[in-house]
Amino acid sequence: MPVITRRVDSVEADYRCYFCFARTFERLMEKHTLTAAEKKELAAEMFSHFHNGASGFSVPALSRELYRLFREKSGVVDPYERIKYESNDRLLREYGSFREKIGHSDDPFETALRLAIAGNIIDYGVSDQYDLEGTITRVLESPFAINHAEQLKQRVADAKTILYLGDNAGEIVFDKLFIETFHHPNVWYAVRGAPVINDATLRDAAQVKMEEVARVIDNGSDAPSTLPEKCSHAFQQLYNEADLVISKGQGNLEGLIDASRDDIYFLLMVKCDVIADRLGVPKGSFVCASHKLKNEQAG
Amino acid sequence: MPVITRRVDSVEADYRCYFCFARTFERLMEKHTLTAAEKKELAAEMFSHFHNGASGFSVPALSRELYRLFREKSGVVDPYERIKYESNDRLLREYGSFREKIGHSDDPFETALRLAIAGNIIDYGVSDQYDLEGTITRVLESPFAINHAEQLKQRVADAKTILYLGDNAGEIVFDKLFIETFHHPNVWYAVRGAPVINDATLRDAAQVKMEEVARVIDNGSDAPSTLPEKCSHAFQQLYNEADLVISKGQGNLEGLIDASRDDIYFLLMVKCDVIADRLGVPKGSFVCASHKLKNEQAG
Repeated sequence: MPVITRRVDSVEADYRCYFCFARTFERLMEKHTLTAAEKKELAAEMFSHFHNGASGFSVPALSRELYRLFREKSGVVDPYERIKYESNDRLLREYGSFREKIGHSDDPFETALRLAIAGNIIDYGVSDQYDLEGTITRVLESPFAINHAEQLKQRVADAKTILYLGDNAGEIVFDKLFIETFHHPNVWYAVRGAPVINDATLRDAAQVKMEEVARVIDNGSDAPSTLPEKCSHAFQQLYNEADLVISKGQGNLEGLIDASRDDIYFLLMVKCDVIADRLGVPKGSFVCASHKLKNEQAG
Repeated sequence: MPVITRRVDSVEADYRCYFCFARTFERLMEKHTLTAAEKKELAAEMFSHFHNGASGFSVPALSRELYRLFREKSGVVDPYERIKYESNDRLLREYGSFREKIGHSDDPFETALRLAIAGNIIDYGVSDQYDLEGTITRVLESPFAINHAEQLKQRVADAKTILYLGDNAGEIVFDKLFIETFHHPNVWYAVRGAPVINDATLRDAAQVKMEEVARVIDNGSDAPSTLPEKCSHAFQQLYNEADLVISKGQGNLEGLIDASRDDIYFLLMVKCDVIADRLGVPKGSFVCASHKLKNEQAG
């Protein structure tokens, strides 16, 4: 199954993305204190972005613009601050039991990888409601739509430097558990450079003590993705020099799907029809896909 | 409670209306065969209307534009044709039992009026799902947020000519039952001049045999509302000369809320926060409100 079918800089905004953004921003606006006039202005500017960017506007870039707009109008710098704290806190309380589950499994690497993908359900850019328990059950039992976990395990063993791109708060706890199974001396964990949706930042990395298993770096950008050209120089250098990049979540995939560097592995839940169509897999699938192995079969 | 608080030609599009239109059109687009390119174009044009009309665009006028756009792009002149037929058919099969319920009630006029308002739940511009049975139970048992039914009953008795503005297919069956209770020789029933959403047209009036209780006229317009200045000359004359106008549904209210003529009674379910705020009543309320009696209390 061809994983990637055409080349653009990142995922283009499909008309379906506009409707999805409209739903997300309606929810966001209703939850925060804005006057009717401010809401109207925000909505009008959002629709102007949709209109003007109707062709070729990348999803992560558009998302970044829209969340910036929300921050400006609302004065709320981090609308998901409390939610992020609580997601981390909830998962940290179960850290021990998940660790035990991984340790006692036949293949701790694959079990931890699967849990790390389950954690990707905690995504407030998609929905405020999610079923983590159900997703964990499903991720441990279901075949993946694309499964390059064995190759990834080998690459982890061979790589001198690994760059792991985090996605959401809460999920970051599973990332830590997964990285623990690497027993690798040189893993970097990257977070967003500024708050956007419930994406993990340095504060979340500190809350879950990520420094116990990896060196932590922020990417210097406020996109809910990894757009290398928009990231800090330090991050770019690391991104270019790492032997292996592990990209968590749909947001990072959207930015890197056509990246020119080799050895990126995408670990994600497929959350929408746009990405499902792009990857040629059903919506809701779990994916561990090597960017390099574009024409490999699913396993 | 003040019913109407400011004057514009019809209800202005609030930012909330844009989100509501986006949801409705997303549903509509998913249900019809359009290519991805056509959907993208349609979405872009819709967002351009939102952007350009961000202040002062009336809801019925915008709605008319958007459904026109959909018809042009899709080539589907009447996307709700089958749904309208089935709604009428379903209610017609229960005509006898509703008629009995009305006839056996203490106040047939008010019972029929309440059922006519319950029928207003059948509105595909708001949702594809509705609970007619539950709404009927609720409408018969709940106090109305505004209740000028007694005055309306008197006005029906006194009026020489009554113009009844229909709203949706299905609902039109309840309108017929209600008009039957008038025992009035000179009632006109107006439908839309062309298909728009599931609003009733001449075809629906014929299906339910509305001519048995009223003379039927189409208003010459394809707005999902009554915008008198956009209607046919014949309709305008009738609208100006009728002693009493009974306006069914939120769509007609949106067009006539600040109409200059007297003696309009609005019968509706309040389906959204925008109209709820405007009328000063809770969303979901049932309303029978005289346009003239702006400062009367709810009953």
